[in-house]
Amino acid sequence: MNKKRGQQSVVFDSPPVITSTANIVGPMEGEGILAEFYDRILLDNLNGNDNWEQCESYMMEWAIKKAIEKDNSTVDDIDYVLAGDLLNQLMSTHFALRNIGRPFLGMYGACSTLAESMLVGSTLIDGGFANKIVTCVSSHHDTAERQYRFPTELGVQRPMISQWTVTGSGAVLVSANGTGPRITAATVGKIVDIGMKDPNAMGPAMAPAAVDTLWHHFDDTGRQPNYYDMIFTGDLGSVGKNLVIQLFKEQGVDLSTNYEDCGCMIFKEEQDAHAGASGCASSGVVYTGYIHKQLLKQKLRKILLVGTGSLHSTTSYQQKESIPCIAHAVAIEM
Amino acid sequence: MNKKRGQQSVVFDSPPVITSTANIVGPMEGEGILAEFYDRILLDNLNGNDNWEQCESYMMEWAIKKAIEKDNSTVDDIDYVLAGDLLNQLMSTHFALRNIGRPFLGMYGACSTLAESMLVGSTLIDGGFANKIVTCVSSHHDTAERQYRFPTELGVQRPMISQWTVTGSGAVLVSANGTGPRITAATVGKIVDIGMKDPNAMGPAMAPAAVDTLWHHFDDTGRQPNYYDMIFTGDLGSVGKNLVIQLFKEQGVDLSTNYEDCGCMIFKEEQDAHAGASGCASSGVVYTGYIHKQLLKQKLRKILLVGTGSLHSTTSYQQKESIPCIAHAVAIEM
Repeated sequence: MNKKRGQQSVVFDSPPVITSTANIVGPMEGEGILAEFYDRILLDNLNGNDNWEQCESYMMEWAIKKAIEKDNSTVDDIDYVLAGDLLNQLMSTHFALRNIGRPFLGMYGACSTLAESMLVGSTLIDGGFANKIVTCVSSHHDTAERQYRFPTELGVQRPMISQWTVTGSGAVLVSANGTGPRITAATVGKIVDIGMKDPNAMGPAMAPAAVDTLWHHFDDTGRQPNYYDMIFTGDLGSVGKNLVIQLFKEQGVDLSTNYEDCGCMIFKEEQDAHAGASGCASSGVVYTGYIHKQLLKQKLRKILLVGTGSLHSTTSYQQKESIPCIAHAVAIEM
Repeated sequence: MNKKRGQQSVVFDSPPVITSTANIVGPMEGEGILAEFYDRILLDNLNGNDNWEQCESYMMEWAIKKAIEKDNSTVDDIDYVLAGDLLNQLMSTHFALRNIGRPFLGMYGACSTLAESMLVGSTLIDGGFANKIVTCVSSHHDTAERQYRFPTELGVQRPMISQWTVTGSGAVLVSANGTGPRITAATVGKIVDIGMKDPNAMGPAMAPAAVDTLWHHFDDTGRQPNYYDMIFTGDLGSVGKNLVIQLFKEQGVDLSTNYEDCGCMIFKEEQDAHAGASGCASSGVVYTGYIHKQLLKQKLRKILLVGTGSLHSTTSYQQKESIPCIAHAVAIEM
């Protein structure tokens, strides 16, 4: 009955099944590398709404409903929704969930929120508390930019180490029974803060948290890195990704052949996203699109999704605090 | 094995035990009604920190460590910490947890966060995923006021319907085994938004969410309102509390004899808190102090704690959105 493993991990007796996923993205993502894997591409960043925040909320509502539709379920079949986003007080999530009308648990792990929600949702199902849950996250370049950095109208130049927040939403429907990849294990992250203070350099700040969670995952479960066909982190971007590879290399582990970062998979080089993509929707749209379809086709059979979150706020930055980071991992196997 | 009841509730096979609680409050709370039930009362709202946010973070760290100490445990005995606060990106929580160093799940339900965390934490324990967890919330009058309303230096007059955010933190340590009151059932709330837009009147905005969760709790579990010695809502204040009583009365149910709101129990009339107390720490310090001790003394044997959250943000208010609200309930029995 004890499903805990080691210090930070759990294994599931009856691994919950991901029976459907759905996603929706903005126009820039729709011109990116993974265009064919999105369910819907918006024509602009407002989509007829009065403001970007409403558009972000709309995307989340759409993704949740689409995942439910693909599962041949109705909204009433969903026991609980676990969701979150980057905006203050999870604004997009709350307005989306107001329209969904199902029991709801608000989660916050910044860009690790999808992995966190899948982890907690899986414990609800394997623990016997739910039959079907939906997890969902969203982010929007324009809402994030004006909240975290500068008014977009100001046209501030972005440093090359910065990443571009993904406009999109991804929903993952997890069931007790059914067909699809299964969530077999998960690792809960600790807060890791190496003292970095530059909110433009979130990838390198988050990389040590990803490494910490990965080490504990391997240690707790007894799985080796090569147990997985691929390991995906959420949004470390090119700088953070290389740091993860380097940190493992220093410990004698070669991750270079089966590790990728979702933030490096979304935008093309010429789209000028600098160090890559970021935001809750980075792992959100990559898992629900490309990765999930590779699992269904059995081109990938065992993957580890490591959501990575930079937990700073504009206030903490102004108060000269460093950036606390976290990473949560879910093992998904076909 | 199916622990779900009705639409929104769960029951626990092996009800998790609250083996310790701890709390810490600011000076105004320390002069209030429940002064004797607090573990520590700060002399001022900064407590030697550079800013109020650091003080809030300190309170959370202190409460978590105190609850662990009272449980005769060490920090390493804690499998997971589930916590949250009102600040953007859960700032107080993340800096507190950076110093705790245990696996952490960030939760956001505004002032319903303690009940939400106790609920999710109990599923982790009853589901076999954890042996000991700590849930914790904090709020701070000065950090909340300047984030949600006006710079405190401005001295803006508060309307009589407004509530006073509690400065404090409360931690609840939940174990698989041990002595203490047990969490026997819980109800996950839905978002309820009746169209109210005044962020000074959160009590009346949240009252319908509390009523919705209460109805579902009674319906799902088959328990009648008089099953409980007392039902406590989190922070509806005097206006919201009377609205709950009135809404039940209209349905032929008299709650007036076994229902109270934590927001009406903290400050004395002459402390000028207007409609009462609010904030995550409202239910946080009242449960961990007064209520928990009444349970231990068996002066109360069965209580229902209903955390109530107003999920608006300053951005949603500026964009003329109404206030989405939620309530989560946990049944605690000695």
